[in-house]
Amino acid sequence: MTSIAADPTDSVFVRACRGEPVEHTPVWFMRQAGRSLPEYRELRAEAGLSMLETCRRPDLVTEITLQPVRRHGVDAAVFYSDIVVPVAAAGVGVEIVAGTGPVVAEPIRSSADLARVGRAEDADLSFVEEAIRLLIPKLEGTPLIGFAGAPFTLASYLIEGGPSRSHAKTKALMHGDPQLWHGLAERLAEITSTFLRVQIDAGASAVQLFDSWAGALSEADYRRFVLPHSAAVLQEIGPVVPRIHFGVGTAHLLTAMAEAGADVVGVDWRTPLDQAAALVNVADLRLDGSEPGPARPRAVQGNLDPALLSAPWEVVDHEVRRVLAEGEAAPGHVFNLGHGVPPEADPAVLTRIVELVHKISVR
Amino acid sequence: MTSIAADPTDSVFVRACRGEPVEHTPVWFMRQAGRSLPEYRELRAEAGLSMLETCRRPDLVTEITLQPVRRHGVDAAVFYSDIVVPVAAAGVGVEIVAGTGPVVAEPIRSSADLARVGRAEDADLSFVEEAIRLLIPKLEGTPLIGFAGAPFTLASYLIEGGPSRSHAKTKALMHGDPQLWHGLAERLAEITSTFLRVQIDAGASAVQLFDSWAGALSEADYRRFVLPHSAAVLQEIGPVVPRIHFGVGTAHLLTAMAEAGADVVGVDWRTPLDQAAALVNVADLRLDGSEPGPARPRAVQGNLDPALLSAPWEVVDHEVRRVLAEGEAAPGHVFNLGHGVPPEADPAVLTRIVELVHKISVR
Repeated sequence: MTSIAADPTDSVFVRACRGEPVEHTPVWFMRQAGRSLPEYRELRAEAGLSMLETCRRPDLVTEITLQPVRRHGVDAAVFYSDIVVPVAAAGVGVEIVAGTGPVVAEPIRSSADLARVGRAEDADLSFVEEAIRLLIPKLEGTPLIGFAGAPFTLASYLIEGGPSRSHAKTKALMHGDPQLWHGLAERLAEITSTFLRVQIDAGASAVQLFDSWAGALSEADYRRFVLPHSAAVLQEIGPVVPRIHFGVGTAHLLTAMAEAGADVVGVDWRTPLDQAAALVNVADLRLDGSEPGPARPRAVQGNLDPALLSAPWEVVDHEVRRVLAEGEAAPGHVFNLGHGVPPEADPAVLTRIVELVHKISVR
Repeated sequence: MTSIAADPTDSVFVRACRGEPVEHTPVWFMRQAGRSLPEYRELRAEAGLSMLETCRRPDLVTEITLQPVRRHGVDAAVFYSDIVVPVAAAGVGVEIVAGTGPVVAEPIRSSADLARVGRAEDADLSFVEEAIRLLIPKLEGTPLIGFAGAPFTLASYLIEGGPSRSHAKTKALMHGDPQLWHGLAERLAEITSTFLRVQIDAGASAVQLFDSWAGALSEADYRRFVLPHSAAVLQEIGPVVPRIHFGVGTAHLLTAMAEAGADVVGVDWRTPLDQAAALVNVADLRLDGSEPGPARPRAVQGNLDPALLSAPWEVVDHEVRRVLAEGEAAPGHVFNLGHGVPPEADPAVLTRIVELVHKISVR
């Protein structure tokens, strides 16, 4: 590894995020660290700790974050954590139940409930800083992506009390008590900004804001209730490091999610990357600033359908080539799946995808 | 009730589906018959029969189908059944498990498995015919909407063995063994066509094809693997009665779903009806026929977010008015929710919505 390659801010991944020339298309996988890897499952079984306890142990976080980098040779590491980690640090009683997801003991549905959510400045995130300081030298130049859940997705867990398909209580609260909604979303935006800031200050070279469930909203509701809070996070963070903004089922929201302040928009498998690149780059036409100067074109990330990881290799090979070809139309392309690695994915297929992307995308 | 109003083919609902002038916007609710109504839960408890047994009892089907018409005063009844009813009649071992959905004992994943799926002509659907012949006089002119699941959504249950969020096995089979996929989808299209044909012949005045999970697919996959089979169903049925074609999360598929041969496209809450009306009416521009003559403009159905049924009434009132205003841009509008009535919905809110739609949409 040359000394130039060892500077993560000059890595292929970071340059692709910025739309700069790259030697090949970089690739990483959402949820690459974790449940799909046997070495992860062994480590968790040996440690015998809950998910949240694991996230608070810098030595374990370091090892888990490194595992997929070692195994797959991906172009970026992603900080191993959970979206509820900073919320738990801010005093919300939450547990991650295996097979279910985050479960909140006392859901937030009133101003009295909101008062129980601590402030960002009171959250002790020293274990995050320590984990990243341990990680950076071991990554030997591989860039680290900082990780956080966006205010809407976090709020849905807090309001519903757990995962929800309909987000009914969340939507009823947004529309029925907008003041309480905005109060909660502002609080979560502050906590999220702090969580990302700690990661950047400790050495993360990029961040990804996961608004996994934003696709459940119409564009009108997204713009009214969600965009201002995600924008507060992204604009507070950027543009020091590239900011990736991702959600699932967001074909109708890509322009709005770009407007929130992303350098890279993550796209699920429903929208081809050439169409997505056009949608995320019309955003500035809607801004009303006087002479804002030319905006940097936005890159895209994605978007192999994770459901196809279990298809025969010829299918995967064909789809990887299609995604790369469609990504050529974007100002920058980071290869990824269209959603997280499924728990049952065969890690050997992921490794083979990394090799294929690297081989056929050489400039 | 006048004798003219008593002809269901001249009802407000059917005329709105055809884009003809109407005195007010018609309204019905997907899943209006069933789980949200106390009289339904009582009847099921008294009968002590499984869901599929209930669907095979013409007397019970008649009563359940009538319940929401009596209670809410909706402009159409929808035949009470389940999408797996015709598949079960064709010999597939399937049960509906409360709280889960359809569960298939031996999933279809090979040509040998496909051979176990019977042919449409072998399915005994006489109980459907009998139920509808009982129903029509009791409906006193209220039109009846026939009901069926589309080939993709049915195939997903058969391949996965039950409900799935990722549809991973289905997608892997489509791409990995297209011949088997198309064989299964053709078989299901025949079964679905037969199921709808029986309902139309017995007196249904419209049909709705539910492709509930189509939104999980990219447009390219939808066009390659699904559209031809849904088109086979819709084109075989129409245009004798209006055909409604519905899916969830289909912002990116509305044009393709219209092209499959719908007179009305059902839209979830993610796409405003004015945008949807434009998307479903560009479809014919893509057809390559020589002088096909002017196509009838397509109507839209939807699209109040069912998650908002639990919001304060002022919110519901505001959203109903917005949906009606956006629907004005369409050649025809049938008011509905953007997805089925949730089990926990308050029936009184649904009744109030019917009254509001009727009151404020008077021409």
